[in-house]
Amino acid sequence: MKQEIDRLPLRERNRQRTMRRIIEAAIELFSTAGYDQTTMDNIADKAEVSRATLFNYFSTKRALLLPFANDLYEKNIQPQILSYLKEQPATRDVLRFLFMSIYEQVLTLPEMERGLRAELFQPQPAMMKLSHGHGFFKTLVTIVQQGQQRGEIRTDISDDKLGRYVGTLYVSLLVMESKDSTSTSYVSEIDTLLAFLQGALKG
Amino acid sequence: MKQEIDRLPLRERNRQRTMRRIIEAAIELFSTAGYDQTTMDNIADKAEVSRATLFNYFSTKRALLLPFANDLYEKNIQPQILSYLKEQPATRDVLRFLFMSIYEQVLTLPEMERGLRAELFQPQPAMMKLSHGHGFFKTLVTIVQQGQQRGEIRTDISDDKLGRYVGTLYVSLLVMESKDSTSTSYVSEIDTLLAFLQGALKG
Repeated sequence: MKQEIDRLPLRERNRQRTMRRIIEAAIELFSTAGYDQTTMDNIADKAEVSRATLFNYFSTKRALLLPFANDLYEKNIQPQILSYLKEQPATRDVLRFLFMSIYEQVLTLPEMERGLRAELFQPQPAMMKLSHGHGFFKTLVTIVQQGQQRGEIRTDISDDKLGRYVGTLYVSLLVMESKDSTSTSYVSEIDTLLAFLQGALKG
Repeated sequence: MKQEIDRLPLRERNRQRTMRRIIEAAIELFSTAGYDQTTMDNIADKAEVSRATLFNYFSTKRALLLPFANDLYEKNIQPQILSYLKEQPATRDVLRFLFMSIYEQVLTLPEMERGLRAELFQPQPAMMKLSHGHGFFKTLVTIVQQGQQRGEIRTDISDDKLGRYVGTLYVSLLVMESKDSTSTSYVSEIDTLLAFLQGALKG
């Protein structure tokens, strides 16, 4: 990552550094003071940038929720999944654990679900943002690989493609459903999706 | 449809009428003269609106490709599918026929695939645009219903939800793949998706 940045023109490098500093400031404040209690001024102060610069990079506080969610995902959820995989669980159980962890540790935070949905409606399609190249997508591919090794998941379709199918379906559920985002409706959506995937992954 | 328009405020009603007129003019010109041969001026003339008005509604000619594709879908493909369904085909065969018809009758038209992909990258997520409430989505639900009646498709998940899963996966394939949009790569993507869906729909 560092090396990649080194190869960019100076101006772009500085842009990325500022962006990174803002994101890190926001993540720290959201984690400690909480999302609702954090103001854009707090973020600007902590990142040591002007208010104008901050708004130039992120026009709303809500736009900082996606990097925050990514961070929570990579620091907390991903390690939990990787360690759970060591116990050789059934694929359906890992997927359920993954989707429920996202719900409990990310989506239930204040403003998170609404904010993420708003973010996911932005130009790039949701599945691009949340799946390809992203930690979530990698986790799914890892889960699929393990299932393939266990002989539980078909091998006539590549791990990469199966992971993408699963990710696309999960993300679409996140974007389309949950007008009433109660935990029961989330759980029932997940269970329906898992029932659908069961046969699909077995092949 | 007509009644719905009648209930809107005058200004919005006029806006929708103008939009409709532009879309119809574009569809007619694209169908007769062809997309490449049609200019924005031709469209403005035919719709009897000024160039300024036209650009106000559609900033590029390409933006008119999605309504054109919808029209082709509803006028040609949907009826073919409905009539094929009368022969009681296997679900996999109808889905394959549907996806191949979209390819042959829509995606291979000049600029269509590139244009649609660009359109699908716009604010609303692709699956919203192309699936919910849209003819394509309704066709999928009809196909699923018939499969359920034939006992070929699971009934523990609703036709509506199964149709949405299938639509989401198909649309994501349209958006993400096909950098090299050769017909062989399309066919192989579709066959992989159908193999995935086979088990999923059976339950």
